[in-house]
Amino acid sequence: MADEVILLGNYFSIFDMRVRVALAEKGIEYEYREEDLASKSSLLLEMNPIHKKVPVLIHNKKPICESLIIVQYIDEVWKDKSPLLPSDPYQRAQARFWAEFIEKKTTKGEELDKASKEFIESLKLLERELGEEPYFGGEIFGFLDVASITLYNWFYAFETVGKFSIAEHCPKLIEWAKRCMEKESVSKSLAHPEKVYDYILALKKKFGFE
Amino acid sequence: MADEVILLGNYFSIFDMRVRVALAEKGIEYEYREEDLASKSSLLLEMNPIHKKVPVLIHNKKPICESLIIVQYIDEVWKDKSPLLPSDPYQRAQARFWAEFIEKKTTKGEELDKASKEFIESLKLLERELGEEPYFGGEIFGFLDVASITLYNWFYAFETVGKFSIAEHCPKLIEWAKRCMEKESVSKSLAHPEKVYDYILALKKKFGFE
Repeated sequence: MADEVILLGNYFSIFDMRVRVALAEKGIEYEYREEDLASKSSLLLEMNPIHKKVPVLIHNKKPICESLIIVQYIDEVWKDKSPLLPSDPYQRAQARFWAEFIEKKTTKGEELDKASKEFIESLKLLERELGEEPYFGGEIFGFLDVASITLYNWFYAFETVGKFSIAEHCPKLIEWAKRCMEKESVSKSLAHPEKVYDYILALKKKFGFE
Repeated sequence: MADEVILLGNYFSIFDMRVRVALAEKGIEYEYREEDLASKSSLLLEMNPIHKKVPVLIHNKKPICESLIIVQYIDEVWKDKSPLLPSDPYQRAQARFWAEFIEKKTTKGEELDKASKEFIESLKLLERELGEEPYFGGEIFGFLDVASITLYNWFYAFETVGKFSIAEHCPKLIEWAKRCMEKESVSKSLAHPEKVYDYILALKKKFGFE
């Protein structure tokens, strides 16, 4: 039996995009179902009754939730192609540590115009972790690259709204992001920066925040 | 060369205790260094410069931070004895999901007397996940058991301060906890419930909250 893979997601979600990148890296065919977050489908509520959030990967009828857990699951099930987590336990722990770090900062990042200074400091730490390597995975695009790159298409909106330049503070991180964007698995999976910006403007208008 | 394993921890930390349980399960000898959280050691600040928190496992001079990441690291390095994560990718994803769930609830749980109702609801969900199995790991004590059991010795303090009974709402979870406590790896690694209570009272007094 062929695998049935369905992704419940949202085009703009940084978390959802991680899963799209990982599926593309592994060359897995799947059905994508866009969720309207203002009116969630009964399937989403059934598949993720605890958090009621995207992304949810439904693999042969069984749901997996939380983006970093889904990416690890994908890496473990489809292990023959494009390994994402390093094989060395210490390197794996480091990749997980930094992915969690981004996770926490990203959740906070929803109030980004208030928190731009802290955000830049976080990106600088991430840039330091990258060091002189082409990818966080060293020579190969790996787990931490998947976890981090989906922030990139939000940068334009962050910079425009927050009135700061990420490239000025973190030039090597921008080089890394551009390197990742040369991969089709990434460029085809990420939302368009202008659309993200419009989306944020619409949210600001709707909720009346500055 | 024999492994050098040092744990920077704090006796009362729910997170630190997870690492103590995992090390005990694996039969790993280690040096324990108690950290005074009011005056952190320079070693702790050097080994965990990002979060500056316990627990930190230092394995052959290299630091690993964040309790769930440390437990996975221990499981991957010392893989021949007492496997903690299941071998099946779906079961692994489920164990990670629920461990993250507890992680988020525990962090909130620091304001527990205000949040007792939500806490009980979380425990009920956890109890439902346990089902009729002896352990979260099924027949064996595994990753999610390690992640969850360290809450147990805080129950007495939670119940006393919050004036509620966990056993009344979650009898099977209490049975599970008692089953875990029969394991020496658990009973020797957890703090004493009365000491936890005294610790919480002292904190309440110091910070003047009710």
